[in-house]
Amino acid sequence: MVYLIYGIIDSMNYKMIIQYEGTRYNGWQKQGNTENTIQGRIEIVLARMAGYSVEIHGAGRTDAGVHAYGQVANFHLKEVIKAEEIRLYLNHYLPDDIDVIFLETAKKRFHSRLNAKEKVYCYRIGTDDHKQVFERKFRYHMNQKLDVKAMRLAANLLMGEHDFRSFCANRQMKKSTVRYLRDIEFQVEEHEIKLIFRGEGFLYQMVRILTGTLIEVGQNKRAPEEMTNILEGRQRQLAGFTAPAQGLALMQVMY
Amino acid sequence: MVYLIYGIIDSMNYKMIIQYEGTRYNGWQKQGNTENTIQGRIEIVLARMAGYSVEIHGAGRTDAGVHAYGQVANFHLKEVIKAEEIRLYLNHYLPDDIDVIFLETAKKRFHSRLNAKEKVYCYRIGTDDHKQVFERKFRYHMNQKLDVKAMRLAANLLMGEHDFRSFCANRQMKKSTVRYLRDIEFQVEEHEIKLIFRGEGFLYQMVRILTGTLIEVGQNKRAPEEMTNILEGRQRQLAGFTAPAQGLALMQVMY
Repeated sequence: MVYLIYGIIDSMNYKMIIQYEGTRYNGWQKQGNTENTIQGRIEIVLARMAGYSVEIHGAGRTDAGVHAYGQVANFHLKEVIKAEEIRLYLNHYLPDDIDVIFLETAKKRFHSRLNAKEKVYCYRIGTDDHKQVFERKFRYHMNQKLDVKAMRLAANLLMGEHDFRSFCANRQMKKSTVRYLRDIEFQVEEHEIKLIFRGEGFLYQMVRILTGTLIEVGQNKRAPEEMTNILEGRQRQLAGFTAPAQGLALMQVMY
Repeated sequence: MVYLIYGIIDSMNYKMIIQYEGTRYNGWQKQGNTENTIQGRIEIVLARMAGYSVEIHGAGRTDAGVHAYGQVANFHLKEVIKAEEIRLYLNHYLPDDIDVIFLETAKKRFHSRLNAKEKVYCYRIGTDDHKQVFERKFRYHMNQKLDVKAMRLAANLLMGEHDFRSFCANRQMKKSTVRYLRDIEFQVEEHEIKLIFRGEGFLYQMVRILTGTLIEVGQNKRAPEEMTNILEGRQRQLAGFTAPAQGLALMQVMY
């Protein structure tokens, strides 16, 4: 593939929206020698195109096995290349399970993570007794009905600004663990519950721990009122289990 | 797992409906030593349960990579075991990509293939320029708009009773290649065309060759009127390419 350089400038900032199935990757973020990350895969192709190494900045650092319908990332190039040409080049060399669905030039100071105003995550829970062959990599199959009324009550106590330390998997977290969780929406279907989380930022594995805790409420293993104590206790062991990665997807990032 | 034997009789016939993702299998039908078929996988679990080898008869012999939402199969046991117990036993030991969604006792002479009145197959064609990360194993990604009007004209010439030898991948086929193709339905969405084939029986790879030929009409590589000549010519090379397996699924079998 050939691409045209339209000019040499200080640097051009690009913003892209990416979809991926996380199943076979070690998550978004490049870690040491681990090239098998989404970030790593994209950077390899960008370096091949640019002729020098290009670092990309993702809005959300999705865990191993977590999917994305609307991850956002930005990167700088020394040259101006037409956005659509970069997108086609990337998609040509990226594997089938990663797709750059949109790419455009961005303001020089735009940073996909630091400028994000809100992120939307969706967690899918299967509540029927079928394996759901075609959905198995995209939801957590419970084979159990959940008490949605209790889950909603619990969710109401979790929304808003709180110290979410109990819902953070990083026990050595030194920075603030206060976050604003704007909303947890319930989409309840016959065989599936979707939990939609909207907030300005989330701690490490926070959505999966929130989901695991809400599931335990739905199983009537915990009372909804416990949420207040869990938040106040500020200890990971007070909250519920970490719901499996495959049920989670980063849906959208708002600026 | 424990199962209860409710009686010893001559034999009991069971009918089941199965869903599977065909991606990692060598198709439905057991072939020699190849255990990596859907039939082979299910027979292994049934033999484990029954204590003797059990042969299952599938309604449609789906190719490698073809999926099923409603494959039907039957098998005989020497004992009467509750249908739901067999179903749970099977699903417990079968891999995640095979699911027995329904199982019941059947009349003694019921045969899933010989008694089938109609089969419904669906072929999904992606016509947008996105990779469709989450659908990539379930559709054929064309990245090209197709001339649906021409395709419909061609489909009209293919429906009905014809000798479909030109649409049969088995060139040594000695039996009759006359089949009754009741209907080809078009479901046209913004980014996808679904072709629904309904007929009493299909030749080896017939649906995929019909689809490939219709796609070539949709690309304006062939005129719709050619269909008549292709049918009359009775030679495989007259028809179009064999559309890839992953776009095809056996939806339903009617009795």
